[in-house]
Amino acid sequence: MFERIAILGTGLLGTSLGLALREAGFKGSIAGWNRSAEGGREALAMGAVDLIASDAISLARQSDVVVLCVPIYSTLDYMEKLASELTPQQLVTDVGSTKGQITDAAGRLFNTPERAAFLPGHPMAGKERGGASLGEAGLFRGAVWLFTDDPAWQRSPRGAELAANWRDWVVAIGSKPIDLDAERHDELVAWVSHLPQFTATALSSLLEDQVGDAPELKHVGGRALREMTRLGASPFSMWRDIAHTNTTAIEAALLALEQRLAYIRENLRTPALREEFERANAFRRE
Amino acid sequence: MFERIAILGTGLLGTSLGLALREAGFKGSIAGWNRSAEGGREALAMGAVDLIASDAISLARQSDVVVLCVPIYSTLDYMEKLASELTPQQLVTDVGSTKGQITDAAGRLFNTPERAAFLPGHPMAGKERGGASLGEAGLFRGAVWLFTDDPAWQRSPRGAELAANWRDWVVAIGSKPIDLDAERHDELVAWVSHLPQFTATALSSLLEDQVGDAPELKHVGGRALREMTRLGASPFSMWRDIAHTNTTAIEAALLALEQRLAYIRENLRTPALREEFERANAFRRE
Repeated sequence: MFERIAILGTGLLGTSLGLALREAGFKGSIAGWNRSAEGGREALAMGAVDLIASDAISLARQSDVVVLCVPIYSTLDYMEKLASELTPQQLVTDVGSTKGQITDAAGRLFNTPERAAFLPGHPMAGKERGGASLGEAGLFRGAVWLFTDDPAWQRSPRGAELAANWRDWVVAIGSKPIDLDAERHDELVAWVSHLPQFTATALSSLLEDQVGDAPELKHVGGRALREMTRLGASPFSMWRDIAHTNTTAIEAALLALEQRLAYIRENLRTPALREEFERANAFRRE
Repeated sequence: MFERIAILGTGLLGTSLGLALREAGFKGSIAGWNRSAEGGREALAMGAVDLIASDAISLARQSDVVVLCVPIYSTLDYMEKLASELTPQQLVTDVGSTKGQITDAAGRLFNTPERAAFLPGHPMAGKERGGASLGEAGLFRGAVWLFTDDPAWQRSPRGAELAANWRDWVVAIGSKPIDLDAERHDELVAWVSHLPQFTATALSSLLEDQVGDAPELKHVGGRALREMTRLGASPFSMWRDIAHTNTTAIEAALLALEQRLAYIRENLRTPALREEFERANAFRRE
């Protein structure tokens, strides 16, 4: 059904999405737009998009589906700008990591009989570093793709049909869609995504203070340390908007981990340590 | 120089060591002993050892070098048992994860003109699960092998020569030896090895409480979550002795991480968050 897909933001996710759609057999046009010219050129050279447009709004106007692959506050900005420019024949979707504010904006700005449809989405895939050059067609394969749309506010005439079509493409590129309401989404990702990131950041930052001036000792930890600090390389620019738009849930998760670490610290020589290991083992059991 | 190597404990490390020595060209005999008959049979079937002895002490008596590949308290027990049984022509070494008590015992029980030499060692290699069946010849390749011997107490007549020979084999199997004093060792591994383990245990245990009853949600986190909780599968039996013999250093590291997480939690919306990300980025920069 879709013939023209626009990808706004050809960073890691946008570039990977273009490559994945092509690999999955999408025959229409894929046009990109990117804030920096260099990132756009890179995505074009990699074959992720057929062209790079100079203006995001006019590109969106000419597309069947617009995929916002920019940070959360930019996504919210573009939602404001696009709402009055698009028609009920069009679908907008996104890949933002927190969904409360985006889902609210979707209900307020889209999904009316006169407006385009908006389907809030969040692929659970990424890397510790961003940028078009790290994009790959297989990034979304095997990953969960969360959706937080609410059929109750879906009143765009072709909304259901357009959304179903986008979900088919998400499946075609190898992802597994799961539906959640936005509040539950933001709470869940605070535990399974944001908490692991901030933990890796805290651990890496702490170790930089402890052994950062002794490079030979940074490598002593081997694979375990490498894995536990890999996400320490994640750039602030990717995580600032997440910290700002899911603050309460992240605070709760961080506090719970602080308490769990304190409990372990106070029980290094008691039988409670065995119970903590057994509970951790259970989490890893399939 | 060594013709007969004894490996006491054919778990993951002991089995991997036998396989690695063979792959590196060791032509002499490698004999094993294991607390459970099953683990011994497995190491034998894999070719890690040529035979499994029924008695650890008499096997040790007939060997040029005895490698203790058992948990820390068992290592300390065998050091007591072996000290009076062996001769100054023999070397004992170990692979224990904490070195304070083992290095003390080495100074007290070995390394005199009448006693065998003892070289305390610690390969920074392992897996989140133990057992002979997971053993592999390449386990130590590229890993650091820490030593905490003190030449000052090395008075066994052939001690220096025997220790140098064992170090050559450590290099031959692909490891990189680094020397530290025992106190600095225990402090360093608290940061780069024990802290990552207890952090993964705390995170996994916490997530088991939060999403353990919703298996479909355990997989939402993807690769990042898998990596940050992989060590959650580590068995208590491997970590109990570490917690008991390096308690003070681990307590200090855990407390520092609790404080770092609290600092991040209190600064999710301030410029200090950027500084934490930048410090973490620096740790991951080569």
